[in-house]
Formats: sequence, structure tokens, C-alpha cells
Amino acid sequence: MNGLYHLGELPTQAVERLVQRALDFRRGVTPVKFPGRGLGLFFLSPSLRTQASFQRAAAKLGLDLVQLQGGGNGVWQLELTDGAVMNGGSVEHVREAAAVLGRFVDVLAIRAFSGGQDLALDLSDPIVNGFRRFAGVPIVNMESALWHPCQALADWATLDMLGVPKRAKFVLTWANHPKPLPHAVPNSTLAMALQRGMDVVLARPKGYDLHERAMAEAQRLAHESGGRLTVTDDRDAVEGAAVVYAKSWGSLAAWGDLAREQHLRAGLAHWCVDGDLMRRAGPNARFMHCLPVRRNVVVKDEVLDGPWSVVIDQAENRLHAQTALLERIFLDLEAQSKAKKSSLELSMKSSGELEEVRP
Amino acid sequence: MNGLYHLGELPTQAVERLVQRALDFRRGVTPVKFPGRGLGLFFLSPSLRTQASFQRAAAKLGLDLVQLQGGGNGVWQLELTDGAVMNGGSVEHVREAAAVLGRFVDVLAIRAFSGGQDLALDLSDPIVNGFRRFAGVPIVNMESALWHPCQALADWATLDMLGVPKRAKFVLTWANHPKPLPHAVPNSTLAMALQRGMDVVLARPKGYDLHERAMAEAQRLAHESGGRLTVTDDRDAVEGAAVVYAKSWGSLAAWGDLAREQHLRAGLAHWCVDGDLMRRAGPNARFMHCLPVRRNVVVKDEVLDGPWSVVIDQAENRLHAQTALLERIFLDLEAQSKAKKSSLELSMKSSGELEEVRP
Amino acid sequence: MNGLYHLGELPTQAVERLVQRALDFRRGVTPVKFPGRGLGLFFLSPSLRTQASFQRAAAKLGLDLVQLQGGGNGVWQLELTDGAVMNGGSVEHVREAAAVLGRFVDVLAIRAFSGGQDLALDLSDPIVNGFRRFAGVPIVNMESALWHPCQALADWATLDMLGVPKRAKFVLTWANHPKPLPHAVPNSTLAMALQRGMDVVLARPKGYDLHERAMAEAQRLAHESGGRLTVTDDRDAVEGAAVVYAKSWGSLAAWGDLAREQHLRAGLAHWCVDGDLMRRAGPNARFMHCLPVRRNVVVKDEVLDGPWSVVIDQAENRLHAQTALLERIFLDLEAQSKAKKSSLELSMKSSGELEEVRP
Repeated sequence: MNGLYHLGELPTQAVERLVQRALDFRRGVTPVKFPGRGLGLFFLSPSLRTQASFQRAAAKLGLDLVQLQGGGNGVWQLELTDGAVMNGGSVEHVREAAAVLGRFVDVLAIRAFSGGQDLALDLSDPIVNGFRRFAGVPIVNMESALWHPCQALADWATLDMLGVPKRAKFVLTWANHPKPLPHAVPNSTLAMALQRGMDVVLARPKGYDLHERAMAEAQRLAHESGGRLTVTDDRDAVEGAAVVYAKSWGSLAAWGDLAREQHLRAGLAHWCVDGDLMRRAGPNARFMHCLPVRRNVVVKDEVLDGPWSVVIDQAENRLHAQTALLERIFLDLEAQSKAKKSSLELSMKSSGELEEVRP
Repeated sequence: MNGLYHLGELPTQAVERLVQRALDFRRGVTPVKFPGRGLGLFFLSPSLRTQASFQRAAAKLGLDLVQLQGGGNGVWQLELTDGAVMNGGSVEHVREAAAVLGRFVDVLAIRAFSGGQDLALDLSDPIVNGFRRFAGVPIVNMESALWHPCQALADWATLDMLGVPKRAKFVLTWANHPKPLPHAVPNSTLAMALQRGMDVVLARPKGYDLHERAMAEAQRLAHESGGRLTVTDDRDAVEGAAVVYAKSWGSLAAWGDLAREQHLRAGLAHWCVDGDLMRRAGPNARFMHCLPVRRNVVVKDEVLDGPWSVVIDQAENRLHAQTALLERIFLDLEAQSKAKKSSLELSMKSSGELEEVRP
Repeated sequence: MNGLYHLGELPTQAVERLVQRALDFRRGVTPVKFPGRGLGLFFLSPSLRTQASFQRAAAKLGLDLVQLQGGGNGVWQLELTDGAVMNGGSVEHVREAAAVLGRFVDVLAIRAFSGGQDLALDLSDPIVNGFRRFAGVPIVNMESALWHPCQALADWATLDMLGVPKRAKFVLTWANHPKPLPHAVPNSTLAMALQRGMDVVLARPKGYDLHERAMAEAQRLAHESGGRLTVTDDRDAVEGAAVVYAKSWGSLAAWGDLAREQHLRAGLAHWCVDGDLMRRAGPNARFMHCLPVRRNVVVKDEVLDGPWSVVIDQAENRLHAQTALLERIFLDLEAQSKAKKSSLELSMKSSGELEEVRP
């Protein structure tokens, strides 16, 4: 596995093997150790779960950890545009930043949210894609403008752990929030549930569609898995849901226009998951959210503190999912180095150059 | 030991064992290693000694280290109030932050100073207590609004190292400072010296009392140890002191009211420890301070650079004290896991479920 | 080796041994490990390469790592002036910060750029020199106001790796930039190339001389090595150069005076390295820069993305050079501890105090 940008890139079987391994780790299985291998974590956006769980995963795998924080007194501001004349605020081009960090570690994990100002720029996912183009090592996406594959993998593991059937009903519901948030999580949640083959309902108010490219990718995955997608603005569509997954996101129509966004969501404060909604879903419905979550805006205390919520388990599974993912990536790297080394030895032997090969 | 919030929680014998162990480490004894165990450090307030010494202590104990920095581009802003409608600046409730981090590590250490605006809020010590309620793992207080137990433990170790007798005179003196500072250190210093059984003088100008709850706790500890507490506004009370411990703090009466605070301390610039004061204390008196210290405001250069000062030894003992504290906490955790495991095996054996138990 | 402030302090033979070792590491040789030894990294200025490469080097050497970030919510603001009355913004004097950190680790590495306001202060290199005076442990300069020895060491290794002859022509050219930058890199680059014995041309516009002290040090090294230095404002002096090394820096005459600086460089935008200049240098000329670099201001894309550029190799060599440097410093520390220990044992034996010496 050569890094991970979007979970849907992986064959479903590969995802299922990672989920299995993640749940093994949750039960106490010890991962493979990779002494002398290095992992870089580069955060250009804030993080609690992601930082903590990647740091711990690196330690569990015995990796050399390199961690950088962008912004403030941390790291130089990055330029993303090809051909830019860099006489403004950006101090370093992603071409150099990526290529250099790629020389210091074997795998790089990057977090860089969408800027929320320029939709076309955000749709190009410029930072994480810049690193993928220029780093020369596998890149793990710790949440980009468009995708959050580690969250999706952890969520899949959570669904399996809870015994939620593959064909069960999964409702992804938009929620109110004081700010327009990026689309990485809803894009990834929708794609994940459909790749898993679920009966997915996307419930959102008018004006809050996900981008057509993310929808097309979701449909492609549904087609492969036999999953089903319904889009509605009817919050009563939760009926019979095994899972209610809440998430807020901004309107594509109002991207970068805060006044319009506020106007659009003015009457939408009732898009908050409460006990009534969960009871309408059914007696065994689970409440999921990626966290951080705005209590009593996105979801009521009674839900988060009630029997429905599995959000802390979801978060714990970030650690196990990422440990499984990194273990796989480093195992594949080691296999590649071995293959390279023996083909090199073979060619040296045949050309008589091999004098002394130390282990 | 299930974490540490305030040193006075511990039986004096337990403190003395930790101090002994800390001084062993100072002499070069190697601590126990805990491979595969994880420690989280979460800083919501600035730090030099605490960060550095906890990082090094974690390495000495062979722990997996997870470190997070609040504020700026680091971690989400925390909400502390139960039932809050989170439509303002706070992005994550301490309930989730604590519960999630508690899933990633075995022990969490938190630093969160008082806000200095709302006295009732500060007296509830909301952040560290939030973590204690919701993390589900032992919490180590790296300085909260009210207490700084690691400083107190290091100071006790310093007193023992220097051979300062248990019954010696210990003067905690208020000092001038451009800002009103929190009470965690004076509260903890007073309590520590009294738990150690010392003859304690608290010298402060009128209007600079410590909170009655901290005073009551100090008296409780004095009662147990046979220590003695005198409160005075007479700076000449240093006579015969084995230790002069300087610290500035804000007035409870002016909490959150900077103008009133400035007015209160307008005539107090002479509350600065100088050579004369140390000479009045006596020929072998020691000068202590927790650092960072404002030179020539809190204490004159001649004292810090003179024969009296032991502030660098105090700081070094932070490392050894915290190593001893963490070693104890992780030893107790391991003992608990073993106990749980053997009672589980026992119950499995008796129910015939035990087939294969790997070490 | 007792730390490293400026590469020119080291005998050339010592530099050559470090370069050799760095290139061994680049070829995959494993460094010595120092379990139980501690390295502190303290960043008071931003960093990408330096942070990442020092973190990785520490891991490769098996060191306990302590890392602190100054500014923001990280570490207290430092006071540098002796005798200061600290009633302003500075919270801790470098005397205490250095002495305390020196108790927590065996070696400290510090990054602190020039402030760019007060030339006399910057010429005293106050922060790194403060740590050298007060820390009590070897200090590694990760870029101070005046010197960047790790960059110089990595650059020397890059020149050796590329087979650039000792006597080859090396052009250090000033370059345009939106901001006046510090002199640490040009000072160190000039000194390094001359210590290596090269035929050095310093090409800069009038008004952009380096400080006379840095020039004198460069001349001293040239004198020892047989290197040669020419200063010119003629950009055509690149002819026949094996290396064109670009770097921008501020005018000493305009230090702290942004308006004057902008005026001085108003007509200097053509001081940007382009393909024409590289072609004038010659068919095998290499382009070097320490990074981060402003594309199309300091150097054109065609150069950075063309056959001339070795900037990524330079950056990679930071890791290997620093690993070699730290390995040397810690080997010397271990030798000193052994020597101290056996002389102690000897003196105890002779005085009959030695009862039991554990290994």
C-alpha cells in the first residue's frame, strides 16, 4: 500500500483486512515493530485525536517520529501554486517542503483542511496533493480538503465491532453549527458506508448538497458493493436506522461568503440530533460523530451522554485503524526494500562487482 | 497511586518514599521501564521546566509519549460548562477531549492555569477536574488553578537533599511582580512545608491572603504533622529562617480587576528579596523559587547569583520527583492489570473457558 | 567536541572527519546509539528542515529527546540583558532557562535568529551565547544571529559528495527578496567555502557587504587553507563557477530601518538566479541554496527544477551532518564520563573509600 489518500481507492478486501487488524489491536494484539524506520507527521490544521493517535501509533510500531506543526512559530508558510512569484507571505514552496521531508522519513502523514475561500482551489486539494506529487515517499492523508480516510477506516472498524450488518440502514444527517465546515468528513463517511454496502440515507436541508464529484465517487462505490443511496431533506428518514451519523458542513453555493452562509442556515437550528430523533430511529440505533462536536448545537447532551452514543469508541478506533494502516504501509515498504536489495545483489553478482555484502 | 491532584492527598509516608526515590534518581539510580505503556502530556498553559522535565521523565521510564499543546494552531478550544450550548468559540467539550485522550494513553498529565477572571470558576479548577471526571485514567496535575503538586514534591526533595531539618523555619514571602499571578504555587508551597512539619511563616502584605480553603487545607496538614503556621505582614519575620521561599500572587479581592490590583500593589515594590533580607535570615539561609522568576522585581541578582540560591537544584529535582511519581503510578497500574488478569483467568478456569493463555 | 557554535572553530581535519562520517550515514552506515543520554532542542525561531532533521538524528542515535518551542503558547519569553529589571514582557532570564535545561539533558541545541532591529545586540548573538554561558552542557547552534554551522557542515558534505574539487570556483551571490534576512547563512557559507580552500567569489550589490568581523573570520580561514576570496558587484563573475550558491540578506546600513532597506533594493530585482546565469557559469555548474527559497524571486523555477539544482541533496545532508556531529559530541561526552569515573575510583581506592562499585 503506497500511502492512503481516500479510503475508496482501496479494494474492499484490503479495507476489510485493515479493519480486522485494527480490531485485533483493540483486543491487545501487538503490532509489528519497524526499528530504524521513520514517520513524519505534518499538521497544517488543528488536531487533538489525530495528533495523539498518530503519535501513539508511531510508538507502538517502534518508528522514529518526526513531528512538525505549521503556522505560528512552527513551520514556514507554504506556497502551493506552480510558477508563483513568491514575493508575498509564503516562504517555502510545497515542492521543496515535500521533497525535503521525504528525504528525512520513510512515510509522511499530512493534515491540511480546506481553506474555505476558493472552491476551485479546495477541490484541487492542493496541499496533500502537493505532498503526493513531490515528496517521493508514501503519503497518509490525516484529513485534507476533500477526504479523511483514517476517520472512515476507524468508522468502518466501529461498525464491524458493534456488529452493525453490512446491509443495515445508515443515516448521514447534516447538523447545525455556527460555522461552515469542510466536506472531508461527510464525503468520506458517505463513501465509506456505501463501500461497506449499506443502505445509506443522506439527510440534508436544501442547499447543502455534497459536491458532484464526491457524490459520483460514492455512487461508484455503491455500484460495486450493492449499497444504496437516498438523498432527502426529510429528517424523519431516520426511521429504522441502525446508525445516525451527524455532521455539519458548509454550503457549496456560499463557499467563502459567510453572510450568505449565515442566511442559508438561519432557519436550520432544529437540525440538531436529540433523543426524539434517536427514538424515532429505533431501539438499537447508534449515534456516531467524528468529534470534535458542538454539544447542544449539533447534538443534544441527552444523546451524547445516553445509550446511543458510540463516539468515544469511534475515536479510540482511530488509534487502532491507523496502527493497522501504518503497519501495512511499512510492511510493504520493507518488502520493496528487500526485493530491491536482492535484485541489486543479483545484478552485482552477475557483473562480478559483489565483493563483500554485509547484512 | 491513582494520579496526583494535590500533594496533601498523599499520606506523608507515601510522599517520603517518593522523595527518597527522587533523590536516588538524582544519584544515578535507573528507574523501572514500562515498554508499551503510554503517557499523555496536555499543555493548556505555557511551560519550560514542566515540558522538558516530563518529556525526559517519560523517556527515562521507556513510556510511549503523546504530547499536545493547546491554543494557537495546536488543539481545539475546550468548553468546560455542563449543559453549554456550544455556539461560541469553544470547539470541543472537556467531556469528549478527556474521554478520548484517556483511550489513547494509560496516564494523562494536564497543565491548565487559572484564568484569573472569574474567581468562582478558578476555585472549581475546571480543566484539571474535568479531566479527572471524564478521562477514565489517572490524571497528573502539572499545575492547575489551585495546586502544583509536582513542584511541591520537588521542593520537598530539595529540602531533604539539603538536609533542612523537618522542624526548621520556612518563610514563604509574597513578592512584587508586574502581573497578578495564580495561587497554585503558594497554595502548594504552604501545604508542602506544613505537611513536612515545618515552622512556617507566611509573610504577605495586607490584602494578599491565600484563599480560606487553601488555608484550611494547610492547617489540616499542620495539625497532622505537628507543623506550625504564622501569618504576618512583617518582612522582618525572616529572622532565623532556614529557607526563604519567594513567590508573587494576585489579590483575591482584585481577581479579574487589573486596575484595582495595580492600585493595591502600588507601594509594594520593596517586597523584593535582596541580600539584606537573606543576611537577616541567617548565615545558612537558602533562597527558593519555583521559576520562572522576574530578576530584580521578585528577587535581586545578588541573591539569585549568590550563595543562598538553590533554584536550579529545585528545578532539577522536578525531573527526579516526576520520574519517581510516574514510576509509582505505572507500577501500581501494572499491579492492577496483573490482578485483573489473574482474577479473570481464575473465573475463566472455573467456568471452563480457559483454553490457552499466552504470557 | 564541546558543542558547536561556528564551523570555523573546528580544525579542518575535524570537519573532514565529520563530513566523511556524514557521507557514510548517507550510504546507510548505522550510527552509534546512546541509550539513556538526552538531547534538548529549543526553537525560538521557525524551522522545517532543522526541526525534522534534528528529531530524526536524535532517534537514529537512540537519544532521549526533549523539544521546546518558544513564543506563542509554548515557552516563556526570555530576558537576555544582565542586570535587567524584569518588569516588562520578559518572563524568564536566559540565565535560569539555560541552567535549568542544562540539568535535564546532556546536550542542548538552540535556534534563535537575529532580531533584525538592533545591530549591536544581534552582533553579540545574545541568545545562543547566553545558553553557552549558562547551560553548563555542550550547546549546538541550530542557527543563531551570526552563524549556521550545521548548514555549513551539510554544504561541505554536499560538495564532497558531488566531487567538487577543493580549489574549484565557488560563487556566493546575493539575491533579491521581499524582506531583509539575517546574515547567519551567508557568513557561514563564505567561511565554509574558504575553510575548504576554494576560490570564492562574493557577488553582491553595493551596500550589501557582510559584517567586517565575519569577513575577517573568512579571511583567517582562507589564509589557513590557501583559499582565495574576491568581492565584486559584477554578476558576470559566475563564469567558470563549479557552484553558484544564492542567498539573500539585509543591508547592515539599513538594519532595523525597513523603508531604507526597501529603497536600497528597489532596483535589484534582477539579482535572481536564472538559467542564463547558470549557463554562463558553465556546463557542470551546480546551484545551491539552504532553503526555504522564494521561487522566482531568489531563483527561477527553471534553475530549481533544472539539472543544476542540488538543493534537496543539501537538505538531506543536514540529517547526515547533524547525526555525525551529535555522534561525535556524545562519544566525547561518554569518554569524559569514563575518564571522570575512573579517576574518581582511583582516588577512592587510594583513600580506602571504595567498598562496592557497581558497573
